[in-house]
Amino acid sequence: MKRSRSTTPATTAKPAAPARPPRRRAPGRRPGADAVDLRERLLDAALACFVAQGIGATSLRDIARRAGVTPALLHYYFGDKLQLRQAVVAERLWRVMAEVHAGVGGAGDDVAAIVAAFVAGITRAVAANPWLPTLWVREILCEGGALRGMMLEQAGPLLPRLLMERLSAAQQAGRLAPALDPRLLVVSMVGLTMFPLASAPIWQQLFGAGELGADAVQRHAMAVLTRVLEPGHE
Amino acid sequence: MKRSRSTTPATTAKPAAPARPPRRRAPGRRPGADAVDLRERLLDAALACFVAQGIGATSLRDIARRAGVTPALLHYYFGDKLQLRQAVVAERLWRVMAEVHAGVGGAGDDVAAIVAAFVAGITRAVAANPWLPTLWVREILCEGGALRGMMLEQAGPLLPRLLMERLSAAQQAGRLAPALDPRLLVVSMVGLTMFPLASAPIWQQLFGAGELGADAVQRHAMAVLTRVLEPGHE
Repeated sequence: MKRSRSTTPATTAKPAAPARPPRRRAPGRRPGADAVDLRERLLDAALACFVAQGIGATSLRDIARRAGVTPALLHYYFGDKLQLRQAVVAERLWRVMAEVHAGVGGAGDDVAAIVAAFVAGITRAVAANPWLPTLWVREILCEGGALRGMMLEQAGPLLPRLLMERLSAAQQAGRLAPALDPRLLVVSMVGLTMFPLASAPIWQQLFGAGELGADAVQRHAMAVLTRVLEPGHE
Repeated sequence: MKRSRSTTPATTAKPAAPARPPRRRAPGRRPGADAVDLRERLLDAALACFVAQGIGATSLRDIARRAGVTPALLHYYFGDKLQLRQAVVAERLWRVMAEVHAGVGGAGDDVAAIVAAFVAGITRAVAANPWLPTLWVREILCEGGALRGMMLEQAGPLLPRLLMERLSAAQQAGRLAPALDPRLLVVSMVGLTMFPLASAPIWQQLFGAGELGADAVQRHAMAVLTRVLEPGHE
């Protein structure tokens, strides 16, 4: 919360979206459950706009309209567009990545278990957050994507680096073929999970394969990676 | 050529870009070398605009400005924006895909040779056409991408379907493990080639791996796919 209720800016010119201000309370008091709910609802509306029309094309006014509040209220909660974007990334995107990270981190040293934790974690993350592939392609993978910089500078590198370190350690211990570059193996793991999940609408139509869903992608990724990780290939 | 020279529309309001009309010639005569060169140059300018700013955000005026011609000349050569887009796709994107297709088609029935032809073909295509990954991510992989529909309806499906048919035939002949779905294997082959090439600026920075280039990606993809295709894994 940036300011006490009394400084909330007045409703702006267009009266279409009715204001639903947080409940009046004394400055310094913790936000009540209603305000927390509203904050989450505003983040959801922002995320929905980002996914539907792209971050660059989304105005605070678009988000306010979708949430049914005034742009002034949105500004009151989050500040400017960049600050709102930061909040959505931290509280939606990084939260999802942190769950996958925790799964990989808890998988121990066994390279097969690490790979299985990543594949299962990505599959679960996409199932629980269907917006993830769209945002990933348009805002990170796309040249000039709005989140690529944040991804490279903030929480984004943590999971790839954890994977790379675990795979490198396994390789040094002789449990991963020397011919495989651990960094490119991390890229391959993304290319066998996030990429097929993100491109599913394309290849499902190309191959008339609507029956191949996330479960089939997960099984296939594991089948491929199990073969890659098997010893005795050098 | 859509009309004889005499019906070329007059230069439009903004006089910034000088007109360079094709050489005057009698209607019905074949376009001379200059006109062919100009046509190629206009296609190159359109492609450059599409890659730099996205197809949806590119106007005929942008392309004309980049090519140093009038929008009217561009219209004279290609018609409207959609027709120009079709020409760029047919004479740039499909031409590249046709080369990869020819390599795969000439690889015979051996599944390892087919996979090697695809991996080498994609690597060569990206090296010779550095714009390819950017266009592929933004205009095909992105939800709402301008070329996704064309890709699904026109020449785009030919290569994936050829690969799928070859892999299915190899599987029926007992030369590909029954646990691997040929359709998902085609997706994986793209996820191990185009995807790492398209995301290289990201993972090179994430891992401080600027020394890992297209050659390393090609070797890695072959190392992974060779392991996947090896018999005796069931």
